[in-house]
Amino acid sequence: MYWTKEIKAATGRIAPHVRRTPILQAKGFGLSYPVALKLEQMQHTGSFKARGAFNTLLSGPVPKAGLVAASGGNHGAAVAYAAAQLGHPARIYVPEMAGPAKMALIREQGANLIVVKGAYADAAEQAMEWQNATGAMQVHPYDASATVAGQGTCMAEWEDQGLDADTVLIAVGGGGLIAGALAWLDGRRKVVAVEPAKSCALNAALEAGKPVDVEVSGVAANALGARRIGTMCFDLAQTTTLESVLVRDKDITAAQAALWREMRQLVEPAGATALAALMSGAYQPQPDERVAVLVCGGNIAPDPLE
Amino acid sequence: MYWTKEIKAATGRIAPHVRRTPILQAKGFGLSYPVALKLEQMQHTGSFKARGAFNTLLSGPVPKAGLVAASGGNHGAAVAYAAAQLGHPARIYVPEMAGPAKMALIREQGANLIVVKGAYADAAEQAMEWQNATGAMQVHPYDASATVAGQGTCMAEWEDQGLDADTVLIAVGGGGLIAGALAWLDGRRKVVAVEPAKSCALNAALEAGKPVDVEVSGVAANALGARRIGTMCFDLAQTTTLESVLVRDKDITAAQAALWREMRQLVEPAGATALAALMSGAYQPQPDERVAVLVCGGNIAPDPLE
Repeated sequence: MYWTKEIKAATGRIAPHVRRTPILQAKGFGLSYPVALKLEQMQHTGSFKARGAFNTLLSGPVPKAGLVAASGGNHGAAVAYAAAQLGHPARIYVPEMAGPAKMALIREQGANLIVVKGAYADAAEQAMEWQNATGAMQVHPYDASATVAGQGTCMAEWEDQGLDADTVLIAVGGGGLIAGALAWLDGRRKVVAVEPAKSCALNAALEAGKPVDVEVSGVAANALGARRIGTMCFDLAQTTTLESVLVRDKDITAAQAALWREMRQLVEPAGATALAALMSGAYQPQPDERVAVLVCGGNIAPDPLE
Repeated sequence: MYWTKEIKAATGRIAPHVRRTPILQAKGFGLSYPVALKLEQMQHTGSFKARGAFNTLLSGPVPKAGLVAASGGNHGAAVAYAAAQLGHPARIYVPEMAGPAKMALIREQGANLIVVKGAYADAAEQAMEWQNATGAMQVHPYDASATVAGQGTCMAEWEDQGLDADTVLIAVGGGGLIAGALAWLDGRRKVVAVEPAKSCALNAALEAGKPVDVEVSGVAANALGARRIGTMCFDLAQTTTLESVLVRDKDITAAQAALWREMRQLVEPAGATALAALMSGAYQPQPDERVAVLVCGGNIAPDPLE
């Protein structure tokens, strides 16, 4: 009930600022069954992250020091975009692995971009220091209720668009998107968490019975490479129906190629990770099980038009 | 009445073989008003052409010699795909300007690809010779009723999906897609024909009062570079509401960039041509006029994943 109310409130709050992203039913990808897709990479700044960012900014007063965020790229771009749209300054810390395309995307939104040596955790540490020093508002990429409720609007929207599926496959990094989906669905549909074998913080936490640190690498690391799963995601994963599967980098790359070649959707590796679970057989639906795949990010590098 | 019946029949005929492509409403592109979009570049082989190809193949017996088509690339890929799906051989003639990406796409469908020196007209001539010599079935890219009825299913589908627009902007090459739209709409909505200034066979025909030959060049020439508008399109343009506008190559390139940067839709120049009319101001809607843009092709070169 808490989450249903929060996600409904978030939906109304962010509606003027986010896109209602398209859905379709498609055959292809070497699969014998159709797949329902939601093209959330068409969201502003190329990923679902704009939902959580707008919900956070619109949920309370923003200090004069503005916003601060640490990000592998997509979250930072979304915070920078939301801040600019709503007239606030933003300072975004990214690790070097964010890469030039995502860095450019953040700069284009008019934010102050700080590139940090090291991994995402190092960027997060510096963002926290800035927050403490200035009173800037931190937008957490995945482990805050305003973020999770914002990301949950994506699944709420999909159901409102007539989602016809028993099972929804979602890629997991820090777990904000899947936490929002679990919170909204509340067990009404099966959720499959798909992680790269090289960045599998949720899978490791489920094994260990608690969030634990993992090493992160691989093709999707700048979007899915959280060192530790968010506690909100972990808690929701305990109380609702969830299956955790892993895919290899080559499965991700194959799914990415298939989305372009068969559907002219050019997405980043993270955006193809959920589909990779079906194409690789990491998740095999039962006969008559209707499956859906959330395409979550499109910020590919290098920029294809450069 | 003739066309309504034909397009409804085509819709049923091709339904098992084509995608119901997604739609959305979007703000952006530097415009002060929202735009309804249909992402027809997500159709099989990356353009609307699969609709006309399947409708042609399913409208009558296919000879043992199979299919033959001349094409700047997209039509050839669609005919090759439809032929392969339905178990027929296909021979596709393309001019050199089709480019390596579209040639590869045709070969991938298992067709026999013949690259012809010269322009589209030269490829068309050789295709005709092959047809006469072998009895192969010619699939005309735009000026045959089965083709036009097939392309008309795209607008019929859009209305069935709840198209909310007074005016629809459509890019024009030989005129098959817009002919189908005019035939289906029968004056119920305004149609704006958008052509590159360097490939404007419809605009020239409307000026001259009859189809005339034009020179073709520019960034969209391999998709929109018909030397002469189809007679079916020209006749339909006489009897229904249509406005003809021209855009410059740089307008097309700017719209193509905007579709990628603001929406992560990577399309070929022809696919961005209709949007270019709004972004450039070549077509300026009235206040409160609700506009829609058909995104028709995504076979960009070079292949971004090569």
